[in-house]
Amino acid sequence: MPAEGYLLREEDLLPLSIGAALLGTGGGGNPYIGMLRARELMRKGAQVRVIPLEALAEDSWVAEVGGIGAPVVGVEKIEEGGECYRAMRAVEETAGVKVSAVISAEIGGANSIEPIIAAAMAGLPVVDGDGMGRAFPEVQMTTYMIYGAPVSPAAIADEKGNVVVFKDVIDMFWLERFARDTAVAMGAGAGFATAPMRGDFVRRTAIPGTVSQALEIGRTVLDARAKRQNVVERVIESAGAKLFFTGKIVDIRRELKGGFARGHAIIAGTGDWTGAEARIAIQNENLVLWIDERPVIMVPDLIMNLEIDTGEPITTEMLRYGQRVAVIGLPVHDLMKTPRALEIVGPKAFGFPELTFEPLVTREIAR
Amino acid sequence: MPAEGYLLREEDLLPLSIGAALLGTGGGGNPYIGMLRARELMRKGAQVRVIPLEALAEDSWVAEVGGIGAPVVGVEKIEEGGECYRAMRAVEETAGVKVSAVISAEIGGANSIEPIIAAAMAGLPVVDGDGMGRAFPEVQMTTYMIYGAPVSPAAIADEKGNVVVFKDVIDMFWLERFARDTAVAMGAGAGFATAPMRGDFVRRTAIPGTVSQALEIGRTVLDARAKRQNVVERVIESAGAKLFFTGKIVDIRRELKGGFARGHAIIAGTGDWTGAEARIAIQNENLVLWIDERPVIMVPDLIMNLEIDTGEPITTEMLRYGQRVAVIGLPVHDLMKTPRALEIVGPKAFGFPELTFEPLVTREIAR
Repeated sequence: MPAEGYLLREEDLLPLSIGAALLGTGGGGNPYIGMLRARELMRKGAQVRVIPLEALAEDSWVAEVGGIGAPVVGVEKIEEGGECYRAMRAVEETAGVKVSAVISAEIGGANSIEPIIAAAMAGLPVVDGDGMGRAFPEVQMTTYMIYGAPVSPAAIADEKGNVVVFKDVIDMFWLERFARDTAVAMGAGAGFATAPMRGDFVRRTAIPGTVSQALEIGRTVLDARAKRQNVVERVIESAGAKLFFTGKIVDIRRELKGGFARGHAIIAGTGDWTGAEARIAIQNENLVLWIDERPVIMVPDLIMNLEIDTGEPITTEMLRYGQRVAVIGLPVHDLMKTPRALEIVGPKAFGFPELTFEPLVTREIAR
Repeated sequence: MPAEGYLLREEDLLPLSIGAALLGTGGGGNPYIGMLRARELMRKGAQVRVIPLEALAEDSWVAEVGGIGAPVVGVEKIEEGGECYRAMRAVEETAGVKVSAVISAEIGGANSIEPIIAAAMAGLPVVDGDGMGRAFPEVQMTTYMIYGAPVSPAAIADEKGNVVVFKDVIDMFWLERFARDTAVAMGAGAGFATAPMRGDFVRRTAIPGTVSQALEIGRTVLDARAKRQNVVERVIESAGAKLFFTGKIVDIRRELKGGFARGHAIIAGTGDWTGAEARIAIQNENLVLWIDERPVIMVPDLIMNLEIDTGEPITTEMLRYGQRVAVIGLPVHDLMKTPRALEIVGPKAFGFPELTFEPLVTREIAR
């Protein structure tokens, strides 16, 4: 990518949303409505430049935005379009700064598109990177928060005109609690902006290149479909992922627990995995993959279920008995695998005290 | 009262809290902890002047503060003491104004004392008046809100250092929702400040003289106790109230419903009311009094249960089988009885569609 980045074109939005759906690892919400909103803005003349992390001036300010809702898939969608923009403006005003770029909280799912809408409305560039390299359910699960971004002032805005500012917040867990409760009170869709971050901080802590990565994955999917190639194979190749399992879903359990969609899917092996059984634990996103009771991928590494014939990523709420799936894995970025990060996004943080994180890559090398 | 008001003395706090407990009409929380906090500040040299509404300059700004919590009695208490002060400062900062006086949201219960603490910390006077003339459970139930006070920016602060600002809020019902949910997230105690109001607006809409009224009632109670007089009779005389019923509680039902303590008490008549039965409907506060199934007092007029021997006001959560009570009634201020006010605080607003408000005074004259 050139140092000045590249202009996002209208025709980039579809592949971007496809790639983001995949990087959502089963969660992150559907980017479709956001894509339509962004397209509308572009057709009206809005220009959004994607700039690399290195293009951020050290003393500039960067806004992190994303949709937030009751953590139930589908509720993460934004109703009116300007929510993140208004939350961003409220944060700027409260902090007394002007931001010069917008960055995503999470590249996975709907929140890949929200920063683009806010950037288009504000006439700002969007940064090629995000705070997760995937999707996660909670506010504190970004590299920014993990590595000490200011917790306040943050803000949340709804489609009706309400704006709530979290002016002084003592830590990121309180921010998650306040933001989540306010989002639930607001109903369906709310836009969230965290405290402006300095350019040098974002350069050190953001996961780089993930907008381009999502775009690239999405383009590969579209190309493979056009050429009637095996989409799963092409995605694996393009994303640098690995096929871990193929099979048929034979059991799926889901419950709403503590505000999250928790559950698991059991997959009976087919093809090379005939006779084996896989199990995936779910909390909005796919958390852990066991094959024959041995854990083989775990958060924060990425676990993705693709519909085996079409290569379509299957979000956790769309998993159904009888579906034939390919389970692929992708190592998360190193910034998400430090001891500090694992305290927030490792298997223990997600309620698996018996699991100690083993990165996908290390295991690959060890074999 | 002189135009410049009067200095509140340490020895005023006890009668003030006694009068406020009575005006709480069964709710409003216990003012005791707040009283100790205010006493401590006074002993350290804080001076709080009580000023009449007329002393407010038209173009001055007035802060309305009060404790807010899950609307369950006991949760309205403030843990650390500076919550309302910090909420007030956040509102001033967001609105870009400096307030020159503090006024109470409700004179009933714990919130009679909160403005005094905030005023003592800020070195400001407290206004002799409030927004209810009693206690009510929700944010929109003040004369300020009813008569069009600005809804935002408002703010809430907890004892840990968290401050949340409701920067843009579309109406008072949304403010109630956001504030209530945030207060619940904050846990036990939170201080709430609404948008600064102009002096001329407060002069028109506040219920006047209620700090002095509470003080006067409390002094009467203390005096009657010291002289071993009949406290109930002295309170009735001092407050301009009327005795409506005496009896023994024979049934008491309570349930937590929609976040509120709802229920009713049945009282079997004694003395002049032998053979009659009274029923009181409760939602945190006493809402409606029926005698032999005929409604005789209803919100927003005040219904107060006094322990018959000691004259002690009985809060709704302290009602017990076998208690001997005197039920007294007091007309609410006219500002709470306009059609506009009754939409918010009349019997229909509290879930009694079959009742049309009949004011206590009118009924007295009609008899």
